[in-house]
Amino acid sequence: MTPPEKAPAPAFDRGLLSPVTVGHDHLVADEAVLDALVTVEIALWSALDSVRGGDPAAREQRATELRSSPAPDLDALAAAAVAGGNPVIPLVRALRAGGFAEAHEGATSQDILDSALMLLAARARTRLAEDLTALDASLSRLARERRDQTAAARTLTQHAVPTTVGLRAANWLRGIRRAQRALDAATLPAQLGGAGGTLAAWVDALGADKAAALPAAFATELGLDVPDAPWHTQRWPVSELGDALVQLLGALGKLATDVATLSRTEIAELSEGEPGGSSAMPQKRNPSTSVLIRSAALRAPQLGATLQLAAVLAVDERPDGSWHAEWPTLRELLRLALGATAHTRRLVDGLVVHDDAVARNLAMTGASILAERGARAAGSTPADYTGLARELAIQNRGGDTAQQEDQTS
Amino acid sequence: MTPPEKAPAPAFDRGLLSPVTVGHDHLVADEAVLDALVTVEIALWSALDSVRGGDPAAREQRATELRSSPAPDLDALAAAAVAGGNPVIPLVRALRAGGFAEAHEGATSQDILDSALMLLAARARTRLAEDLTALDASLSRLARERRDQTAAARTLTQHAVPTTVGLRAANWLRGIRRAQRALDAATLPAQLGGAGGTLAAWVDALGADKAAALPAAFATELGLDVPDAPWHTQRWPVSELGDALVQLLGALGKLATDVATLSRTEIAELSEGEPGGSSAMPQKRNPSTSVLIRSAALRAPQLGATLQLAAVLAVDERPDGSWHAEWPTLRELLRLALGATAHTRRLVDGLVVHDDAVARNLAMTGASILAERGARAAGSTPADYTGLARELAIQNRGGDTAQQEDQTS
Amino acid sequence: MTPPEKAPAPAFDRGLLSPVTVGHDHLVADEAVLDALVTVEIALWSALDSVRGGDPAAREQRATELRSSPAPDLDALAAAAVAGGNPVIPLVRALRAGGFAEAHEGATSQDILDSALMLLAARARTRLAEDLTALDASLSRLARERRDQTAAARTLTQHAVPTTVGLRAANWLRGIRRAQRALDAATLPAQLGGAGGTLAAWVDALGADKAAALPAAFATELGLDVPDAPWHTQRWPVSELGDALVQLLGALGKLATDVATLSRTEIAELSEGEPGGSSAMPQKRNPSTSVLIRSAALRAPQLGATLQLAAVLAVDERPDGSWHAEWPTLRELLRLALGATAHTRRLVDGLVVHDDAVARNLAMTGASILAERGARAAGSTPADYTGLARELAIQNRGGDTAQQEDQTS
Amino acid sequence: MTPPEKAPAPAFDRGLLSPVTVGHDHLVADEAVLDALVTVEIALWSALDSVRGGDPAAREQRATELRSSPAPDLDALAAAAVAGGNPVIPLVRALRAGGFAEAHEGATSQDILDSALMLLAARARTRLAEDLTALDASLSRLARERRDQTAAARTLTQHAVPTTVGLRAANWLRGIRRAQRALDAATLPAQLGGAGGTLAAWVDALGADKAAALPAAFATELGLDVPDAPWHTQRWPVSELGDALVQLLGALGKLATDVATLSRTEIAELSEGEPGGSSAMPQKRNPSTSVLIRSAALRAPQLGATLQLAAVLAVDERPDGSWHAEWPTLRELLRLALGATAHTRRLVDGLVVHDDAVARNLAMTGASILAERGARAAGSTPADYTGLARELAIQNRGGDTAQQEDQTS
Repeated sequence: MTPPEKAPAPAFDRGLLSPVTVGHDHLVADEAVLDALVTVEIALWSALDSVRGGDPAAREQRATELRSSPAPDLDALAAAAVAGGNPVIPLVRALRAGGFAEAHEGATSQDILDSALMLLAARARTRLAEDLTALDASLSRLARERRDQTAAARTLTQHAVPTTVGLRAANWLRGIRRAQRALDAATLPAQLGGAGGTLAAWVDALGADKAAALPAAFATELGLDVPDAPWHTQRWPVSELGDALVQLLGALGKLATDVATLSRTEIAELSEGEPGGSSAMPQKRNPSTSVLIRSAALRAPQLGATLQLAAVLAVDERPDGSWHAEWPTLRELLRLALGATAHTRRLVDGLVVHDDAVARNLAMTGASILAERGARAAGSTPADYTGLARELAIQNRGGDTAQQEDQTS
Repeated sequence: MTPPEKAPAPAFDRGLLSPVTVGHDHLVADEAVLDALVTVEIALWSALDSVRGGDPAAREQRATELRSSPAPDLDALAAAAVAGGNPVIPLVRALRAGGFAEAHEGATSQDILDSALMLLAARARTRLAEDLTALDASLSRLARERRDQTAAARTLTQHAVPTTVGLRAANWLRGIRRAQRALDAATLPAQLGGAGGTLAAWVDALGADKAAALPAAFATELGLDVPDAPWHTQRWPVSELGDALVQLLGALGKLATDVATLSRTEIAELSEGEPGGSSAMPQKRNPSTSVLIRSAALRAPQLGATLQLAAVLAVDERPDGSWHAEWPTLRELLRLALGATAHTRRLVDGLVVHDDAVARNLAMTGASILAERGARAAGSTPADYTGLARELAIQNRGGDTAQQEDQTS
Repeated sequence: MTPPEKAPAPAFDRGLLSPVTVGHDHLVADEAVLDALVTVEIALWSALDSVRGGDPAAREQRATELRSSPAPDLDALAAAAVAGGNPVIPLVRALRAGGFAEAHEGATSQDILDSALMLLAARARTRLAEDLTALDASLSRLARERRDQTAAARTLTQHAVPTTVGLRAANWLRGIRRAQRALDAATLPAQLGGAGGTLAAWVDALGADKAAALPAAFATELGLDVPDAPWHTQRWPVSELGDALVQLLGALGKLATDVATLSRTEIAELSEGEPGGSSAMPQKRNPSTSVLIRSAALRAPQLGATLQLAAVLAVDERPDGSWHAEWPTLRELLRLALGATAHTRRLVDGLVVHDDAVARNLAMTGASILAERGARAAGSTPADYTGLARELAIQNRGGDTAQQEDQTS
Repeated sequence: MTPPEKAPAPAFDRGLLSPVTVGHDHLVADEAVLDALVTVEIALWSALDSVRGGDPAAREQRATELRSSPAPDLDALAAAAVAGGNPVIPLVRALRAGGFAEAHEGATSQDILDSALMLLAARARTRLAEDLTALDASLSRLARERRDQTAAARTLTQHAVPTTVGLRAANWLRGIRRAQRALDAATLPAQLGGAGGTLAAWVDALGADKAAALPAAFATELGLDVPDAPWHTQRWPVSELGDALVQLLGALGKLATDVATLSRTEIAELSEGEPGGSSAMPQKRNPSTSVLIRSAALRAPQLGATLQLAAVLAVDERPDGSWHAEWPTLRELLRLALGATAHTRRLVDGLVVHDDAVARNLAMTGASILAERGARAAGSTPADYTGLARELAIQNRGGDTAQQEDQTS
């Protein structure tokens, strides 16, 4: 089998090397990007028509017509994107050629691409919220049900003092809730500034007042946040979103790291509901889902750093490469978050706690797990020395110091 | 000069390779870390005494006494930290030997070190706020004063359409305000959980109710946020703070990148008030401050990634190395933020706009800078095509889509 | 246009957000990965047959037959890879079901996947070498032709002293040659160790001597380097390759950074042969190719860091997630290197030097560009003060301190 | 205890937060940097005198005199470095004021600083080689002595098939040898190019032939590699060195990760000779040295990425910030490598293998650890199924596919 000198199909990545995201990434795949780009162009036209005072019914009819037009050919667009360095330039040509002559009036490529990425993020966030809500319920239940199951706490790999299985679950939940809070709080603004961020073309076309109203109309069309100003050169909407995604992947990764560790043959306190097999060893019951989640979480911080770096290098009114580095990076972070969250939900739903192993491991260190207790340890059991573990397991406030109500009990 | 086989003095870093932070890093230097560690131990004692119902006057007297005791020897602590892997273990020994026998009751090293790092961050944030307030005023003024000065906007390195000097400054300000908002919003909670995060030792000593009250008392003593739960294994207080610092350095770095670019010999629209010289070329007027700020901003994203990675790897109830990787990394980010912010304040205060160069560069592209305008360009000047630049320059809302009032006019 | 809830086609990435690699990535796309995986399985069978002393003609006939069998369905494999966490497990099932019953004898998934990635890298390196050879010739020619063209050297953004256009090109070439040297020197070993890295299954099947001969036979079948030992837990073949790719992208990125800078409207010493257009501004002539190359180069260091991190975390005899993080990361680095190298070749081939701008800029600083010269500057011109620029431009030794011959003159 | 508003002493980092490097970093501390900077200035003078044909005896006398002059005040230099952005500018002033009037003739700051960092690296490499030689011997011995001790191999956290303790040690050694090879192969060239990389000032002063001979003379004085050309804008000497250091830290980190994992209370196959204690729990025997090594290894990839990024951003003939970002980053990597290597040497010297735990764990999985063996497993023991583990343990070739001799037997 000689390597194909010319690819028969242009698809670079169909998921073969990315099992963690297979089946969970369609909301941010190239087809979805193209859909978002077209949606953004239609929204711009619609917003323009709206601030111009066009007839709402006619506008809706035209918008419906535009939405039902066949999308331009994705592969042709990708190929044509090379010359100018971004896919919007050929997209506009294709849309106009396809009958959408009014497309892109006054806009610059960055307006369309940045807004489309925000739209993708908004759609992904909605999907993430569903999985996270279910995951939250599972973890809350686990924390509550296991609030009195004493287990060995480990520090620096060694048995330390007692804790409970429920507190461990509650702590996972705290980290995940905190990350979801960050994700929910992320501002996802539409971007609209025109070629230099001054909206000059629209001022020409509409006058200053209507031009000033355009970004809000545009954002509203897209269901995105109204920008306070164009953010073509201030990249916090991208980097803050990236940070929130990395944080989410970090919280999921911590959970998966604990599950993988506690699934070790010698520890065996936990096992996955659907462990993975092996191509060689029939007996293997691998914590494959934890492994998948970790594979995503270990990649995320470096992807986040690329987005933060792009913010530094956003020179001029549009930079010479750092903007372009954001697109695939942000999209990959969304993809990893979608995949890892879906898998964590499944992981926790099926998670098996092996009571015997929990008890056996705890007994292993004998009295020394109570050594901190000094004289009071005499005659006591680990269950006597779990402090506030029970309370901390059921008082589950998601990392929010202000939010006082117990959401799990 | 042969290299010293044994260092005569133990100071590794006195700033020789870190000009951007020299003179601005004392709040987070090792002396300040030691001070924070001791302060945290005293606060723990004080909080314990308080929940135990000790006499306030006696407590204050003892606390004053403890505060005025000589600090343990820093270099000896650093050397003794190697054996156990952290400086708190020898610190407690030294404090007890020095007459503070009650030190560290019920605590674990991580309680002390995490809380001390948060204290350091709080002190640094106060200092940053001063510089950022002054910087905000300078940038607001610059934006307002230059709101009508037309200049060439550049995209992908090329003249694009007109913009204004004031809008450029307003955009810098937006990014910086947004970052400051993130920094201000960062939760800086005390950490208090004991050896396994259950507060068990304090439940033993005080009973459950008083133990439950301890973290808030402790946090209050330190002026830190009250934690909703121990965060020994959920590292968002560190990683969110890191993200905010990286974002701040990113916003400052974008400004410095623009200043350096616009200071290029051929562009020369800006120059620094105190340009740097050269060891070889007497004529050089380098944008040295911008260079320093950029040197910090380019390092920050990778440091932030280390903190985010540590969150993934926070296995068990205290991890085997990733926690330790956080300390110098978070501290270095604080140092860079302090240095870069102080320098940006000075940079903007002294920034010189060269009106002639701004005008000359704008004229350079002739009519083509209005090419987007099409037929309307005829007979017009760049100043006629700045869209909403004026409004965007003076409506300066700091990247906050909800906050509507104009803070600069 | 509502977002598709289920992707009609499973292709995640068809290049829409990756213009720098479109048309240059088929050697490392999923189809090529699948081809490599199958090729590796056939090579293992063939190597086994060979060390067993099978008949060469029959072996070749069977291998040909296997190579011409239809490949398993890629999308089905990707979907089936989720359960066990890697695509080899379902691949083996599919191959066996398709008539290749002997597939995978004694092997573990990691043997197949690691070897397939090395095979991909070897194929990509061959392609890179073609582009790099052509690029080398272009840059050598540029260096030689422009060796006497005096230009302003810039340090910290400011005119410093004179240099030559040719020396600048020669320096680009030095960096690129050095990186190619690193890439050529990268060891690309086959991986073969079996489930635990002991080759035990083959010792069972073949005896120790023949099992010991197997890795070399296998590597030879694949045209890969013979491993000195299984490297399942020592990941230097991946991380060193990653480092070399990052270095190559860094050297190309430096060139592109200079071209973009020297293309600035105010500097204009260089322009691209095929500049990019804009969706808004008809006059724009953007250095789009440089921008594309930079977009790749700015992403590369963070991807490299993920590979290096995976080496740290390669716990046990196969790690729980860090191995999986390597696959898409290494593949993306190969993709970026292929795209950026092809574009740099095209960029340099078409690069236009604007003599008038070079001269005008040099004249701009007047006598002060000779200020370092002190009294000797009087009456001299910049061309008198280029030192060894001519010699350094034509003595082009590729960053190799040992290699003394002049390869360009 | 209120925070000190002005630092009483300027030392930022005395090691309090860096236990892994305390006592092992004097070769790269600020004092050593200053020593290297002065050494480089003396070497430049000496090389100039040499190519000018000065009297060797007089030169040596003068050099000795210069070497014995008191070094400029470090803290004053650090403070004065801010204005121009680097410490060489004030250093040259101080040296000249101190009687070294000939200092810095024809040089630029970058020549001195880059060469000084290479000198530091060379000194650190010599020290690393000592530790690595001792570590190599310990690991070779461990591999040999334990070559027949069967143990459970683990993949994805689960028992897989048998391996041996000796093979595990041999694999650690392979990774470390490979990294040492990369470090030894790193070119550490002197940098000498003058203000614009053309050596023009020296051509003025000495003529072209003597100027051309100067870099080699300078490098020889310093014991550094002779550069083929100035590398002020091609940063591979820094990034390749960084990659080698990251690789070394990665190989050490993998070893430490395994030791920490195998020291887990439930696994307990290994323990450190000098385990760490706890501030709270008297019974703790922590793998503190492994934890320290991991703390360094987890930080290294991100630091390496900063160096690689700096190579991309090395615009012009000296860049506006990325060069400055290299200094503290490269130095920190050297520091981490020195500390982690010294600790790994000590760790392996004292490493305790618990034979009973190794046997007990292996027995735990019973027959299923031989499941891969199928029918042949019946009646066999794990020791019968270790394949080539023995051979691989004693044939220890350091990751070099070409180097065939057995260095351990």
